[in-house]
Amino acid sequence: MRTEDYAIPKDEFIERRRKLAALLRERGLPGVLIWSKGGGTVDLHGPVLYFSNHYTPFPQLADNPPKWAGRGHSGLIVTADGEGILLSDIPDYRDDLIAVDDVRVSLDLPLAAAAALRDLGMARGPVGLIARDYMLSGAYLRLTEALPQVQWIHCEDLYSRLRMIKSPAEIRVIRKACEIGMKTCRAMMEAVQPGRTEAEVMAEALYVLTREGGMIYDHPVASGPHTRFYAYGRLPSWDHYRKLELGDIFHVDMYGAFEGYYYDFGRSAVAGRTASDAQKEILEAAIAAVEASIAAVRPGVTAGEVAQAGFRWLEEHGFHLAASKEELDAAGEAALNLTFPSMGHGLGMWWEEPWLTPDDETVLQPGMVLAIERAVGRPGVGSASYEDDVLVTEDGREVLTPLEKRWWV
Amino acid sequence: MRTEDYAIPKDEFIERRRKLAALLRERGLPGVLIWSKGGGTVDLHGPVLYFSNHYTPFPQLADNPPKWAGRGHSGLIVTADGEGILLSDIPDYRDDLIAVDDVRVSLDLPLAAAAALRDLGMARGPVGLIARDYMLSGAYLRLTEALPQVQWIHCEDLYSRLRMIKSPAEIRVIRKACEIGMKTCRAMMEAVQPGRTEAEVMAEALYVLTREGGMIYDHPVASGPHTRFYAYGRLPSWDHYRKLELGDIFHVDMYGAFEGYYYDFGRSAVAGRTASDAQKEILEAAIAAVEASIAAVRPGVTAGEVAQAGFRWLEEHGFHLAASKEELDAAGEAALNLTFPSMGHGLGMWWEEPWLTPDDETVLQPGMVLAIERAVGRPGVGSASYEDDVLVTEDGREVLTPLEKRWWV
Repeated sequence: MRTEDYAIPKDEFIERRRKLAALLRERGLPGVLIWSKGGGTVDLHGPVLYFSNHYTPFPQLADNPPKWAGRGHSGLIVTADGEGILLSDIPDYRDDLIAVDDVRVSLDLPLAAAAALRDLGMARGPVGLIARDYMLSGAYLRLTEALPQVQWIHCEDLYSRLRMIKSPAEIRVIRKACEIGMKTCRAMMEAVQPGRTEAEVMAEALYVLTREGGMIYDHPVASGPHTRFYAYGRLPSWDHYRKLELGDIFHVDMYGAFEGYYYDFGRSAVAGRTASDAQKEILEAAIAAVEASIAAVRPGVTAGEVAQAGFRWLEEHGFHLAASKEELDAAGEAALNLTFPSMGHGLGMWWEEPWLTPDDETVLQPGMVLAIERAVGRPGVGSASYEDDVLVTEDGREVLTPLEKRWWV
Repeated sequence: MRTEDYAIPKDEFIERRRKLAALLRERGLPGVLIWSKGGGTVDLHGPVLYFSNHYTPFPQLADNPPKWAGRGHSGLIVTADGEGILLSDIPDYRDDLIAVDDVRVSLDLPLAAAAALRDLGMARGPVGLIARDYMLSGAYLRLTEALPQVQWIHCEDLYSRLRMIKSPAEIRVIRKACEIGMKTCRAMMEAVQPGRTEAEVMAEALYVLTREGGMIYDHPVASGPHTRFYAYGRLPSWDHYRKLELGDIFHVDMYGAFEGYYYDFGRSAVAGRTASDAQKEILEAAIAAVEASIAAVRPGVTAGEVAQAGFRWLEEHGFHLAASKEELDAAGEAALNLTFPSMGHGLGMWWEEPWLTPDDETVLQPGMVLAIERAVGRPGVGSASYEDDVLVTEDGREVLTPLEKRWWV
């Protein structure tokens, strides 16, 4: 069922490597080393999976050379002619799924990468590296010290350029991720009741998510007097102790993955369902600001214009966006802007480009997926948040998370 | 309830910095920069939390300078006189919990770290760095380029030396983590029934874990014909599709956290409970090998001796440990040794030293916590795994995960 229904076809991985190889040739690079995290989590797993369909479930370990180093990660070398060498830290990799013939197993992944590059004649001169947000500094130092004559050319942009536009197969998986996310969110919103802890609400949500094949990255929550916070709990980022009280606002930013692709959206609710007028103002403002940005989405506009539409709505309705910690403290709950000065971002195997910041000049194209989000508040009232995932279509846009918006009356 | 029952007292964080400062002075270092991950996950969060009680729930983002860099991480500078400067990527940090007075908020954490080090007169010469397994290479490059005259002294060992011995407050939190883990494991083992998917079994487990205040890092599973694998599913590392069949072995390696401290143990079960004689041999062998190592635990013995005891049991009972991928393929399910050539490791806010490899010369001391583990198999039968968490006491040892061992008859 897995491979039939939601797997990306093997040919698509090979085609992705072919496109990457063309970009490498444009840039005069003989090849690129791509690095990714595994370890059972769903963060920073993207690039190697994108080009090979390999993922290691083995956990990250602290380096312990010469016995092991770089554990819980994977490497992939793609040459300028589109060939791939996969570096796996586990012998029991899923050879039925991965789309690379040459797989090399090693418990010392950085040194295995160095050895493979040497085999390819890339022990000196320029070699590409897609690793900035994926490689731990220890592995980076181990690799670069092993190949002192290589000139590393950081080319994260090649990966970001390719992955921004989703294929039909990818869109099918993202639709499914959003569908599972919506079931999860519904279970969460229905469980927001006086007397229940945030942890109990989250348990209902994760029960649904997990049964459906999804995996949480995080679902940070804040409620009641803590809604100024992005999340008041830590490790996990919801609260095990405090019971919801009648009239508490509960907001969540949900992100997790299905088959490696993300959902990332959120809703707010009120415990007991009845919102005050002051609460309604901020609850509705979060939706309205996001809707203003969504309305601006269509091919040909820039990411910055999408961001501007949401920020303009907020300014026109008197929602101040703090520019400093001091302003934030003065403004109280009203100013969550400092945490994330954006209306959202691209979405796929991770938060991706384009970033929905007002000056971003990336031109939207069909096949991009955006997560559009906003938290807003008023001093003394609290904060609310709202987020939807949106596909850029030929005609305009399609909201991929058409779940009920209002969990209050 | 949180702060009263399970919080580490603020004085303890200050005392930890005092001990670190003494080690810095021994080494002639004016200070050290400590780095950690946050982002809502429970991996790589340890060092900053250990010395400050700060954790950022904000997710990791790809760097997008000048708007932000190093997001989802935290930095902490400890000087040789024990003072601390905390670098937070969020303005809404938990100032009621953190044990540092000087907190600086920035959306560009590597540059904020560089600026703080400059303020302290550490813009040149030797400065310590505890970051090898915690800092992404992009942040490392940004930091080191901002302070080109600093000579970075990697001193991960200072942190590992301090954290190996747990305080009474830490042991109380680890006991609670293990208690929640046992409730989670019991729910999982009881749900291993023919007709249920691995995902359904995991949903029952996560419902319990989440309600109780815990957070999963991962619970990799393999069952039935896939037990040779550490985990057959990927993202998540359990399978959403395949239904368990009567007589399937199901094994799990469970790890997650409560208040930042880990449980890490596991059991095997048989769907329908009835095991064949061939299955019983490997199911019992996994327990026996771990028990042999546990029996060797007491103050004064080395971590290597503990490892040797388990490996000796396996050798004496004809369980071959493969030394290469080729041997592994020839041996089939019998040879999981290549994935993790060890009988376990220290446990606290992460996998810690000592590693239970046969040549490790670390001498055990009261207050250390060990996770002792083994997977074993026979070709044609499958593999089983077992793991317990063990506290080193004055007299010997205490098993912190005294959950029923046999989920079969």
